[in-house]
Amino acid sequence: MKSNPHFYPVILAGGRGTRFWPLSRKRRAKQLLALDSKQTMIQQTVARLLPTASARRFWVVTNDDLRAAILRQLPRFDSKQVLAEPVGRNTAPAIGLVAFLLLRSDPDAVLGLFPSDHVIANPDQYRATLSNGVEIAAAGANIVVLGIRPTREETGYGYIEAGAADANGSVRVRRFTEKPDVTKARQFLDAGNYFWNSGMFLWRADTLANALREHLPNTAPILEKIAASFGTRKFAEIFRRLYPKCENISIDYAVLEPRSAKGEGQSRIFCLPSDFGWNDLGSWTALHEHQVSNSKLPDRMVISASGSFMLNAKNNYIHAPGKFVAAVGVSNLVVVETDDALLITTLDQSQDVGKVVKHLDAKKMKKLV
Amino acid sequence: MKSNPHFYPVILAGGRGTRFWPLSRKRRAKQLLALDSKQTMIQQTVARLLPTASARRFWVVTNDDLRAAILRQLPRFDSKQVLAEPVGRNTAPAIGLVAFLLLRSDPDAVLGLFPSDHVIANPDQYRATLSNGVEIAAAGANIVVLGIRPTREETGYGYIEAGAADANGSVRVRRFTEKPDVTKARQFLDAGNYFWNSGMFLWRADTLANALREHLPNTAPILEKIAASFGTRKFAEIFRRLYPKCENISIDYAVLEPRSAKGEGQSRIFCLPSDFGWNDLGSWTALHEHQVSNSKLPDRMVISASGSFMLNAKNNYIHAPGKFVAAVGVSNLVVVETDDALLITTLDQSQDVGKVVKHLDAKKMKKLV
Repeated sequence: MKSNPHFYPVILAGGRGTRFWPLSRKRRAKQLLALDSKQTMIQQTVARLLPTASARRFWVVTNDDLRAAILRQLPRFDSKQVLAEPVGRNTAPAIGLVAFLLLRSDPDAVLGLFPSDHVIANPDQYRATLSNGVEIAAAGANIVVLGIRPTREETGYGYIEAGAADANGSVRVRRFTEKPDVTKARQFLDAGNYFWNSGMFLWRADTLANALREHLPNTAPILEKIAASFGTRKFAEIFRRLYPKCENISIDYAVLEPRSAKGEGQSRIFCLPSDFGWNDLGSWTALHEHQVSNSKLPDRMVISASGSFMLNAKNNYIHAPGKFVAAVGVSNLVVVETDDALLITTLDQSQDVGKVVKHLDAKKMKKLV
Repeated sequence: MKSNPHFYPVILAGGRGTRFWPLSRKRRAKQLLALDSKQTMIQQTVARLLPTASARRFWVVTNDDLRAAILRQLPRFDSKQVLAEPVGRNTAPAIGLVAFLLLRSDPDAVLGLFPSDHVIANPDQYRATLSNGVEIAAAGANIVVLGIRPTREETGYGYIEAGAADANGSVRVRRFTEKPDVTKARQFLDAGNYFWNSGMFLWRADTLANALREHLPNTAPILEKIAASFGTRKFAEIFRRLYPKCENISIDYAVLEPRSAKGEGQSRIFCLPSDFGWNDLGSWTALHEHQVSNSKLPDRMVISASGSFMLNAKNNYIHAPGKFVAAVGVSNLVVVETDDALLITTLDQSQDVGKVVKHLDAKKMKKLV
């Protein structure tokens, strides 16, 4: 890509990814797992972004449970680049803080917001799209969102309704919608002007800072104060004391939805329709599908084991790396084994695995979460 | 029971029980497992027979792989009472050898043949039946078999066709049949005069010895020679050298079937119809059914785990004793985990687990069998 010297990737890595229990844990969240390759999800995220910005321009926002592991996985990053929120306050304060930090040293900073736990099949195309988006974002008080062209009636994502075409292959954003029911999802798919909200956004730091001052007038000054102390000995204490006072709100609710309500002519929100093989790997089932379609596995069997014997077994996801696995007459199952736990579910119901973690949280079974 | 001082229980414990893989192994066969209680199957077998004969009158026939473990599990037995066949030769030579051994010290010995891996719900009734059978066997050149009143169209067992009623509640045996197909099994069940062959037989040692001399004229003298060396320093060597020369044949094929062909008036084979809650626990599925019906388990879940969470999970057998198990939306599964292996199958197909062991044998994966 054409490298923009003002571009700063900000990687959000504070999520738990409970649907990958028992592999994912509080201190080993989904983004720290090597689910589909030898690299972990966050390592893949960084690797695909490194051609767009030098390592020292990256920021990671996470929490205390994950910070040490993230620094171990990303040895090229300085510890200052990895911020641990003292408490979770959702995405608006997290990226707002980075915007105020960047403004102190680079008034032309363009900030890219990236989830840390998605896969992208075609990184070249991805970076080309990004380059395009950075250019649009850098040009003014614009907000760019990467929209994924939908391929199925997905009810698990938010959608972007697109309006008029604009420069550089972008389209104006008419509306952000909540997760639809299946009938609506079908309509969105058929309509052709709806895109999945990838959670990847690009904007100038000053655009974001101004938006926060407008939409979160109590929170913006707090973030500014914290940013002002960065690099001093007082930073840790101030961060810990003030950050909890921020509103607990996502950037979508705080800024994007009210901004888009101004109408597509006024909001200056642009969507870049994207086709780079994005997959958020939202569940064991999504991971199974991803690995089956990437590798043309016989009988749709994804199996991690020290050895295996299959008899009349099809379409299963089995993870038991140290064991010899025998599967006899079973299909559509998800079985995941760790040192202390065993999950048995189906490809149809694996989205309910988060409920196991809720149960363990409620029972205070801390070793297992 | 009325104790007969000439009664000697002979426990056959040389089987592998491969359908309980991965728990069962070559050196930890089914009879050595505590599948349904704290006692192992062979310990239960001995415990229920001890009221019928003092410990020193028991014999166990097994193999080199299992002998040491059996002696550990049965500390009241002297090592001489546990014979390890140098090679497996099926049941006829095994019990024939014991018959010749017994005849050396007790010409009136009555020998009871017992599998080591079955469960019996009502041991009092069992011993009453046995007492009855020992009396019939002791009285002459009779063969007594305990026949189980069938409760379902079972195609996995041999059946006994009964003829005329005789003394002490016994019936004459008309015929031993092979495992039937389901139509025949249905007919047998409806007919009312068919019984499952339990594998439990009673006869005088001299009756058995004579039967072997008649039906296995080459094998009987070999067994007699081995028996003659018992108690001498040469026994181990002679046993090892001569036993492999015996025919490899079951007592059913060698003696019972040809004998029964003489007709029910001549064969002197008697069946004692029995109702003492016999179950051969032939598979994980049979064990599941046994535990569910014995313990009225909620949702028909049999689970061995350090903790568990069930969500919409019914009718499963799960064994993972050291782990927290989460089962979400699964039913009719069998999942068994050991240190080195994980079996995943269904209640419908668990009888095919033996095929896993066949595969492992063929691949010479010795650590896993």
